Amino acid sequence: MSRVNLKRLAKELNLSVSTISRALSDSYEISVETKQKVLALAKELNYHPNPYAKSLRQHKSKTIAIVLPEIANNFFALAINGIEKIANERGYHVLIYLTHEDHLREIDFLNHLSNGRADGILLSMSSGTENIDHILSMLEKKVPLVLFDRVCKDIPTVKVTTNDFESGFAATEHLLSKGCKKIACLNPSNYLSIGKRRVQGYLEALKTSGMDYINVINCVSEDEKANYATIKKWLTSNDRPDGIFASVEQLAILTYEVCKDIKINIPSDVKIIGFSNLRTASLLNPSLTTITQPAFNIGLEAASSLFGLIEKAEFYTNKAQTLMLPSTLTERESTKATGQRPDAYHYQPTCT
Amino acid sequence: MSRVNLKRLAKELNLSVSTISRALSDSYEISVETKQKVLALAKELNYHPNPYAKSLRQHKSKTIAIVLPEIANNFFALAINGIEKIANERGYHVLIYLTHEDHLREIDFLNHLSNGRADGILLSMSSGTENIDHILSMLEKKVPLVLFDRVCKDIPTVKVTTNDFESGFAATEHLLSKGCKKIACLNPSNYLSIGKRRVQGYLEALKTSGMDYINVINCVSEDEKANYATIKKWLTSNDRPDGIFASVEQLAILTYEVCKDIKINIPSDVKIIGFSNLRTASLLNPSLTTITQPAFNIGLEAASSLFGLIEKAEFYTNKAQTLMLPSTLTERESTKATGQRPDAYHYQPTCT
Repeated sequence: MSRVNLKRLAKELNLSVSTISRALSDSYEISVETKQKVLALAKELNYHPNPYAKSLRQHKSKTIAIVLPEIANNFFALAINGIEKIANERGYHVLIYLTHEDHLREIDFLNHLSNGRADGILLSMSSGTENIDHILSMLEKKVPLVLFDRVCKDIPTVKVTTNDFESGFAATEHLLSKGCKKIACLNPSNYLSIGKRRVQGYLEALKTSGMDYINVINCVSEDEKANYATIKKWLTSNDRPDGIFASVEQLAILTYEVCKDIKINIPSDVKIIGFSNLRTASLLNPSLTTITQPAFNIGLEAASSLFGLIEKAEFYTNKAQTLMLPSTLTERESTKATGQRPDAYHYQPTCT
Repeated sequence: MSRVNLKRLAKELNLSVSTISRALSDSYEISVETKQKVLALAKELNYHPNPYAKSLRQHKSKTIAIVLPEIANNFFALAINGIEKIANERGYHVLIYLTHEDHLREIDFLNHLSNGRADGILLSMSSGTENIDHILSMLEKKVPLVLFDRVCKDIPTVKVTTNDFESGFAATEHLLSKGCKKIACLNPSNYLSIGKRRVQGYLEALKTSGMDYINVINCVSEDEKANYATIKKWLTSNDRPDGIFASVEQLAILTYEVCKDIKINIPSDVKIIGFSNLRTASLLNPSLTTITQPAFNIGLEAASSLFGLIEKAEFYTNKAQTLMLPSTLTERESTKATGQRPDAYHYQPTCT
């Protein structure tokens, strides 16, 4: 009697080897009836998958790759730590590739990775990404791929992100509650949905409160001089905002630098809140009110989801879920209500 | 007549193919006379190396690897940018591996890389490194390898670093010039030479000035809570220092956090200077006086040296040079002389 393998099961049931394989790995592509038929026969014939072949096919490199825009950003440094925790527990190596916000590099890395150099990919998209064909092509090749933080809703795979819309809304409401009447939103202009959702939250909060000063200041990624000039122009204009919501950390820091250079006082002249995982937020002069993403946990979730895909090795149109981990608002000196100018030394944050 | 290749040259000169190859690549292992003989015959027979074979043998992966302790440190983020600039110009991919200061991970990564996954390695040693056998073993296998920042003088390869001794000396002299009488040095305890050289500079400056308060406070890497407690203990002791030289950025930030929490004023109660590439150093409360390493240029030099080794493909005991790029001291509020307590808002740094 021949050895019980996929071929034997396929022959007995008059199905293809591929159908048997997918039925055994619980693929959504196979009907429940077929799965039951396959499992029943597998049990009857005492079928055991060949673990070595499975390992060869599915976990060739024992490596996962992280493709991300930059690391001089504290969010990514923390997210990487979360990813590495999960990877280490499973005995996987982690490779890191930096796109520096460059669409062509992102394409190049994904091509480079599609030859089995990594068993799966965690991708945070570059702001220069002009279209998503290169990512869809990886999904067609059935390369396990999970998006985190910088995601695009049109890509049918697992996405791990924070509640960007709600956080943009909360940041704007916070500035309104501190008496701001002219709130601007600093945002890097790009194709990605995270910035868009944060801006949508800002717009919705202004609409809800009936404010008519609406000012989305688009900044360019990777050109700090241009952004410094843009922020300075607005802070010296007649129509100067009295509150700023920076949708990314880098733009909050740049605003501090502009304010310091042109002697605009934070918070009495302008209040600032920013998305940030900056370690030194509480040590700045004044300390910075932040929306903080759960960066480490986003890394944990993204890596766990990726290993889910790697281990199931199934096509994952049906896995196109979004995991949303909420951010937290930490109130500090930079949004203190006007008239309450604090002693700069030894202040007590109103909320931490 | 047979094609002119290495075999033909070897046959004509009665030498081994390997000797011919090394002579043509200008290896130090081959005598000048032999090299001249080989080059003369190669010219006479119009020998051209097979560029495809050379590429296959020497530049298999078109990838270099960076193995480094952490990326939540601004020095490394900037150094990586320098390395990537050079790698991109040459059409190389860059892989990043993080050791998180773990000796065993460092060994594991180097083993993983020794099978041709990368054409060369840039290594900044983990503070947990207990011995250097794994690195010496890579050199024996003739894997091109360059050390940067966290180096060990006993490893015979190119090392790119900053003037750690002189910078430790200058930092301590700076505190002395601002009136400090009891200067402590915060240093992570480890096997590496960078911290040691910075501490030696501190000790030498105290010796030169005849100071008898000497206090090297050893901190543990990767255990922030323990370090916070150590710093707090010293800052609340009767023998409290009035000046602190932090040999790494992380310890300067921790000192700020301790001072804020226990309401010790910087600079009037204690002055602080730290090695740091912190983007927000000038925005802190008070702004932090720093020794800043030329991180980007250290990355450029390290990568250039590595490509030198990759392209020459020769053994490099004779390349065991150290490139030293000087750091700069930027004076800010945290070391302002006592009695000159500044207005915390809109201050003018004395020197930037």
